[in-house]
Amino acid sequence: MKIIDGGITASLGFSAAGVYCGIKKRKKDLALVVSDRPCTFAGSFTTNVVKAAPVVWDQQIVASSPTVRSILVNSGNANACTAAQGDEDCKTMACLAAEALGITAEEVLVCSTGVIGVPMPMEPIREGVALASGVLAATREGASDAATAICTTDTFTKEVAVSLEIDGLPIHIGGMAKGSGMIHPNMATMLSFITTDATIEKGELQKLLGSSIVDSYNMISVDGDTSTNDTVLVLANGASGSSPLSPAHPGWEAFKRAFEYVHTALAKLIVRDGEGAGKFLEVIVEGAKDKESARTLARSIISSNLVKTAFFGADANWGRILCAMGYSGAAFDPLKVDLYFISEKGQVQVVEGGVPLAFDEHLARAILMEREVITRAVLRDGDAEATAWGCDLSYEYVRINGEYRS
Amino acid sequence: MKIIDGGITASLGFSAAGVYCGIKKRKKDLALVVSDRPCTFAGSFTTNVVKAAPVVWDQQIVASSPTVRSILVNSGNANACTAAQGDEDCKTMACLAAEALGITAEEVLVCSTGVIGVPMPMEPIREGVALASGVLAATREGASDAATAICTTDTFTKEVAVSLEIDGLPIHIGGMAKGSGMIHPNMATMLSFITTDATIEKGELQKLLGSSIVDSYNMISVDGDTSTNDTVLVLANGASGSSPLSPAHPGWEAFKRAFEYVHTALAKLIVRDGEGAGKFLEVIVEGAKDKESARTLARSIISSNLVKTAFFGADANWGRILCAMGYSGAAFDPLKVDLYFISEKGQVQVVEGGVPLAFDEHLARAILMEREVITRAVLRDGDAEATAWGCDLSYEYVRINGEYRS
Repeated sequence: MKIIDGGITASLGFSAAGVYCGIKKRKKDLALVVSDRPCTFAGSFTTNVVKAAPVVWDQQIVASSPTVRSILVNSGNANACTAAQGDEDCKTMACLAAEALGITAEEVLVCSTGVIGVPMPMEPIREGVALASGVLAATREGASDAATAICTTDTFTKEVAVSLEIDGLPIHIGGMAKGSGMIHPNMATMLSFITTDATIEKGELQKLLGSSIVDSYNMISVDGDTSTNDTVLVLANGASGSSPLSPAHPGWEAFKRAFEYVHTALAKLIVRDGEGAGKFLEVIVEGAKDKESARTLARSIISSNLVKTAFFGADANWGRILCAMGYSGAAFDPLKVDLYFISEKGQVQVVEGGVPLAFDEHLARAILMEREVITRAVLRDGDAEATAWGCDLSYEYVRINGEYRS
Repeated sequence: MKIIDGGITASLGFSAAGVYCGIKKRKKDLALVVSDRPCTFAGSFTTNVVKAAPVVWDQQIVASSPTVRSILVNSGNANACTAAQGDEDCKTMACLAAEALGITAEEVLVCSTGVIGVPMPMEPIREGVALASGVLAATREGASDAATAICTTDTFTKEVAVSLEIDGLPIHIGGMAKGSGMIHPNMATMLSFITTDATIEKGELQKLLGSSIVDSYNMISVDGDTSTNDTVLVLANGASGSSPLSPAHPGWEAFKRAFEYVHTALAKLIVRDGEGAGKFLEVIVEGAKDKESARTLARSIISSNLVKTAFFGADANWGRILCAMGYSGAAFDPLKVDLYFISEKGQVQVVEGGVPLAFDEHLARAILMEREVITRAVLRDGDAEATAWGCDLSYEYVRINGEYRS
């Protein structure tokens, strides 16, 4: 697997556009991704009972359409809590894209992100779809315009692309995502779009996506809220000419690893851009009795407000970490826990067998002052491990979220 | 039931003291509560797997002692994550109090709150127990000294007392609590102590406590972390001379209501003193299909960081409330939800049947600018309701918790 420069158009046969249509003030707010041929596809959606209109639309498409050709995304308005009008507007969005592209509405997936409860401004969307479909390009620029147009409070665009060889043919996987606030396990206000020119059957792709989100998007936390709009979509158009991939294929494992890499890389970029985040935190839980316990413990640590604020204050407050492990619901023996803080400045062990060690507070502070800090918990209960990613909780988080809607 | 001025010594036969012994800098840090006769008692403890030494001690006492006489509480050190030495120190604390009071160690409950992972400074405790046992008083002052000595980052003491008549005799229930950070459903760094001069059998008291915490302490949230030390203890010494209370007694319902009132009042005081809290938030969920759904929905709203920061910003961001209901895990129909914000400035309905209403933003802001704000969600799914209490998430919360240990 090779990491390449590129995004959603890194895969053959895909073009993209990102335009400004007037939902937001001044910034690009409409993205269109199109494949030159039918794609098998898969989707993973928010577990929130309150689902935005486009989530409902996409779930229907996943259930009923064998293939799709396009994804239409707007930022600035989530089309959530908009009742029947929202469903109507979402369908109109699909129809507009279908018309412009000469395909059917059932071949168009729709995503929205932004303010909740405000009717979708359809006139800008109408103009935006016409504009975007006219400038679609299978280029680096097309991809980056699209990646820009899906952003809300994001401070940078999130793109990842890789290539690998299967059957002697180059295969590509490209992706873009938006994140920022409300990011939490079980999906969050997070949109992630992946294209690949591999050939892969729809059911197989859905299974692969399901297993891939568990250790990527579901292991990140910004603030613990799960949004109404979270969506991950994958399109596979077979343009590489590869033979159909499945677990029986000799290239499957390599493809799977590359696919997971793209999701994990996008998830980590989302955390790096967490609202008000000053630090990128990685929590590694090792020696857990099983994988699910390891995930639960890592997620509980990364999701704790008290742990997050301690990191904001560069405070080696390991007690809060043990505490967060304790209320996670996962079984473990507190008296077998070792805890370490690690960064570019070095490593310090602060707990051994559940008991605090006398450690160099000066070194610990230097380690924690870095922008990237790893917390490593070793349980000695088994050999399962999991990694979670998150960010600190800062004044800036409170400022951004206290003022977001106003 | 009459609300009376008083705290832990409001009940006949109880005396208390609060002294400074040197665990903290300058502030009172050791409290002693003593009954002049044996008490039946009950306890409810943190669900955290990592339990502080005194929690383990108290759980043993609850399981094995028929009666107790005293509670010894220190602040400044949680005696948590202190391994075998912590257990030893806790036992020594019980022995010191027992010796000073002429009772057995198994008649002494112990609680600690403060920093995690630092060995308990036993010399100050030794001196403090001697000091406290010498100044025990069945007075308002004794109670308020004790209420002061159990505080950590609390900015005010938390005391509640009531009286009622049963069998023609006055019965008292008095209590004190400490809270502040790490307050969340399922108990938190929260200590709460209740005395009563009613006569009530131990098993009955435990059942009553179990049902009382569900709609009091378990319905409050400050920051979502559940601590290693959470404890609620109740002592009943029968000094009122009342006949034994039980569900068969005609005075039971009145006693139960008074008992629940004291717990709920203390829980609300804890929230009012949440770390960095600028607002007191009440969330009422009505019309839920069952009580547990109502509780889950109310707790999910009050625990959301995004909801908390919206209230900090006085932003009528009802979308975040619907969103928090949506990911709560409770089943409800989003299209039947009505939402209201209420304060001294008036009431504004923002959602009807899941659809946003055009509302007076100016009035909404005036309502949300108040220090006490009620959010009312009406579900039209049934007739169950629940109330939860919490506070906003402020810059001050981040400051306090970023600097706590350093």
